[in-house]
Amino acid sequence: MHKVIFDTDPGVDDALALYYLHRHPQVDLLAITTVFGNAPVETTTRNALFLKDSWGIAAPVAMGAAHPLSGPDEAHWPTHIHGRDGLGNIDAPEPAAQPDARPAHQLIVDTIRAHPGEVTLVAVGRMTNLARALRTAPDIATQVKQVVVMGGAFAVPGNVTPAAEANLHGDALAADEVFGASWPVVAVGLDVTRQVEMTHAELTDLARQAGPEVALLRDLSQDYIAFYEALNHRGMVVHDCCACVLVTDPDLFTRRTARIRVLTEGIGRGATVAAPLDMRFPPGDWDSAPAQDYCTALRAEAVHERITRLLLAREG
Amino acid sequence: MHKVIFDTDPGVDDALALYYLHRHPQVDLLAITTVFGNAPVETTTRNALFLKDSWGIAAPVAMGAAHPLSGPDEAHWPTHIHGRDGLGNIDAPEPAAQPDARPAHQLIVDTIRAHPGEVTLVAVGRMTNLARALRTAPDIATQVKQVVVMGGAFAVPGNVTPAAEANLHGDALAADEVFGASWPVVAVGLDVTRQVEMTHAELTDLARQAGPEVALLRDLSQDYIAFYEALNHRGMVVHDCCACVLVTDPDLFTRRTARIRVLTEGIGRGATVAAPLDMRFPPGDWDSAPAQDYCTALRAEAVHERITRLLLAREG
Ligand SMILES: [Ca+2]
Ligand SMILES: [Ca+2]
Repeated sequence: MHKVIFDTDPGVDDALALYYLHRHPQVDLLAITTVFGNAPVETTTRNALFLKDSWGIAAPVAMGAAHPLSGPDEAHWPTHIHGRDGLGNIDAPEPAAQPDARPAHQLIVDTIRAHPGEVTLVAVGRMTNLARALRTAPDIATQVKQVVVMGGAFAVPGNVTPAAEANLHGDALAADEVFGASWPVVAVGLDVTRQVEMTHAELTDLARQAGPEVALLRDLSQDYIAFYEALNHRGMVVHDCCACVLVTDPDLFTRRTARIRVLTEGIGRGATVAAPLDMRFPPGDWDSAPAQDYCTALRAEAVHERITRLLLAREG
Repeated sequence: MHKVIFDTDPGVDDALALYYLHRHPQVDLLAITTVFGNAPVETTTRNALFLKDSWGIAAPVAMGAAHPLSGPDEAHWPTHIHGRDGLGNIDAPEPAAQPDARPAHQLIVDTIRAHPGEVTLVAVGRMTNLARALRTAPDIATQVKQVVVMGGAFAVPGNVTPAAEANLHGDALAADEVFGASWPVVAVGLDVTRQVEMTHAELTDLARQAGPEVALLRDLSQDYIAFYEALNHRGMVVHDCCACVLVTDPDLFTRRTARIRVLTEGIGRGATVAAPLDMRFPPGDWDSAPAQDYCTALRAEAVHERITRLLLAREG
């Protein structure tokens, strides 16, 4: 079993990723922590609680950071991608579930310490909560099993700028601290996530076969699908869920080991720059960063099949 | 015929590139301009004059920039790659040839204006002279046929840092101005140049067959070959000559069109970030940059063969 803390900003692809973790028979979802990103943190927290209600998720939800550790606040929320409500404008009801009393970074620290060496931290939003947890309790770096991050653009252009992927652009300093800590990180970036698409027809068909839980995913994904179709994708790009599939099916991914820095200044803010261990560079600013992994390839059809199969598993 | 101005910092691979341009039957070498980089500009100028003497090159040599437009001076010259003399420690005699009285950027301006619409500017060092020429005479941007730059690392790590290739790192602001001008630029970066290697055995054999002009290239390349062998290359990487082959044999290269910015701040200084025209990005800092090309692939064996064939052509 993979004991997982899911740090997220739901967010349409976050919702699919959460459902994947919730339903996967080899995942024990211990906690959900929220962060600003696809919407303000009050909204992403509300959305996480709504999804907890809708799918009967036992794990607590704790609200996290509203602002980045450094750098500007978001100039505008990506309402054209994730909706005004961060969840595809579905008019979700007020959730009955209440958030955990602790801030997200404290729930992360407490949960890791309760399961030393066992927790996989899956982070699919700004890395602010993770960096705060590290600053509060540096000991967790040696107590985490692994950190799987949806973020970065290594050998491909970014999305929010040509240099940067949105999660790292939104709090570049936090991301640099996460890659710079002594816990083992795997980055699942745009290099691979852009290759896994789910079409409108596929999701419609899956919802019909699977039932109301997947029908909710279908409903909240409609505008997101349209956004990606307009960018000439075949369907929605399931960025965040790719990070979850890496947890359960690591063999479907190819990795490269590198010292990774995130640029924090100027027009390159949020860019990931890797110094692969199999190359040599003059002494410099990467030397103190630990070796981490980033994904260079995935078996897109197999990843897609894992997600589809999970969605079709009997709701119970 | 390609009328060429060669802006260079000889430099071992610069010497091979200069020989290629000098000997190529379809190149009319109009001017050689020097810049700091592989060595101080006094040294690269001396080396250019020495090569002019050695090979009987008619084109004038003008000395250019000693310092970048912005950013720090080189922390140390790359003597472990190009030698203490910038030319493989061959103890070259003092050249008889004298430099042109004009500074490099003025010779660039004058030469372009003398051949409006006809000049290809091949720049294989820091872009300082080109940026100075643009600042002095913005009209040249519309009078140049094309600008071919050895520089950048687009989908691969840099060499002087994990973010940056040396020519652009050495004067990032100048490079950003060169990519940002309205002349057509093609960047031949590490993505492609790393693939073209010439082994010690090959160069030894070529020198034996060709005669003293190529024997000089062989002699000055020995330490440079050893440097690249230590990095697990098969032989020396002929970065600068790749840019020259692009002039004569453009069909051997695959290009992508993009708005290109060069980062000027922080640890990412000198990194090239491309916004390909076939992708869409939110409005931002790339929008005002003109569309330029960068190379994504080359036919390495064919490029190697073109260089080899040129070296074997009868000395005359
Ligand atoms: Ca997310
Ligand atoms: Ca050079």
